[in-house]
Amino acid sequence: MTASPGPERLARQFAFLQEADRLKGILRATPVLEGARPENSGEHSWHLTLYALVLADQAGPEVRIDRVIRMLILHDLVEIDAGDTPIHIAHDPAEQAAREQAAADRLFGLLPDDLGADLRAIWEEFEAAESPDAIFAKSIDRVQPVLQNIASGGGSWVDYNVTFDQLESRVGAKVARGAPGLWPFVRDKAKAFFDAF
Amino acid sequence: MTASPGPERLARQFAFLQEADRLKGILRATPVLEGARPENSGEHSWHLTLYALVLADQAGPEVRIDRVIRMLILHDLVEIDAGDTPIHIAHDPAEQAAREQAAADRLFGLLPDDLGADLRAIWEEFEAAESPDAIFAKSIDRVQPVLQNIASGGGSWVDYNVTFDQLESRVGAKVARGAPGLWPFVRDKAKAFFDAF
Repeated sequence: MTASPGPERLARQFAFLQEADRLKGILRATPVLEGARPENSGEHSWHLTLYALVLADQAGPEVRIDRVIRMLILHDLVEIDAGDTPIHIAHDPAEQAAREQAAADRLFGLLPDDLGADLRAIWEEFEAAESPDAIFAKSIDRVQPVLQNIASGGGSWVDYNVTFDQLESRVGAKVARGAPGLWPFVRDKAKAFFDAF
Repeated sequence: MTASPGPERLARQFAFLQEADRLKGILRATPVLEGARPENSGEHSWHLTLYALVLADQAGPEVRIDRVIRMLILHDLVEIDAGDTPIHIAHDPAEQAAREQAAADRLFGLLPDDLGADLRAIWEEFEAAESPDAIFAKSIDRVQPVLQNIASGGGSWVDYNVTFDQLESRVGAKVARGAPGLWPFVRDKAKAFFDAF
């Protein structure tokens, strides 16, 4: 961010921020408020940043929480064009990735070039899921829907006939990879829910 | 965060994160999605964190954007108990502050003591609006509704018969205090909207 601010730069910054408003209209498979309605990707992104702040003591010593939070702020923006892809529905990962790359081209392209490149690099790092920060961020993104589903009487697990074994393979492995201390606790809560259902 | 993580600690962390879900049900006076519905305080908080990331070049050199983002993640949580107080409606600031302090006692009290104290201190710093980080965060919180109202055909300005002079005194002064380079640009946009209305 070396370019000096000015009206043209501000116009691009605000065009991006205005377009980002549409993330509040992208609905997810998981519910909020004890099942009252689907969660949107804007409020989901906020909740994940709060998860990262509150569960920072579950991250390894090499994880920088403020970078994790930046990833989580940005991680779903591409859904404005590409839509949300629920993990419990069969989908083509290559096709999804292509749609999301095209969305990133358009959305980050609204910003001043230097800033768009900076923020896109953070999103790409999250997507690659290779750095310690990204691996922890991905764990947070996987664990929050588990809690939302439990609090809402099953949520997307009911809608998509998900079994506990499917949850363990689709979600558990990724949570355990980034936050190994977290999964046993969350797994027990989920297991008790499935057993009682 | 020196205490070692364990099941009892995790239970309190998740109790807080679950309670925080209710912020998605607190409705604000400003709209989203070109006026389709009111904004809730959860998605609003996410949008503000994105504003802070994107408008970081408008902050003074003493401002630490990652601390600003932490404040913005937490800034509206007390509304879960205390409700949203629109700035364009007459209200008693002392009564509002008392309600919000009681809400902070209950909500941050759900967390492990050390973590609850850490996060409450960030919220108190935001509320005090004295540190450079808090003053910039307050500017961001004031400027976003201006853009939401313009994009939605007037929003809360129409609902509460707000004049441009009232906007300038209630909003402009606070935006200009924390982000002096931002207000002339946003003021011009708002002025053009009011002139055309």
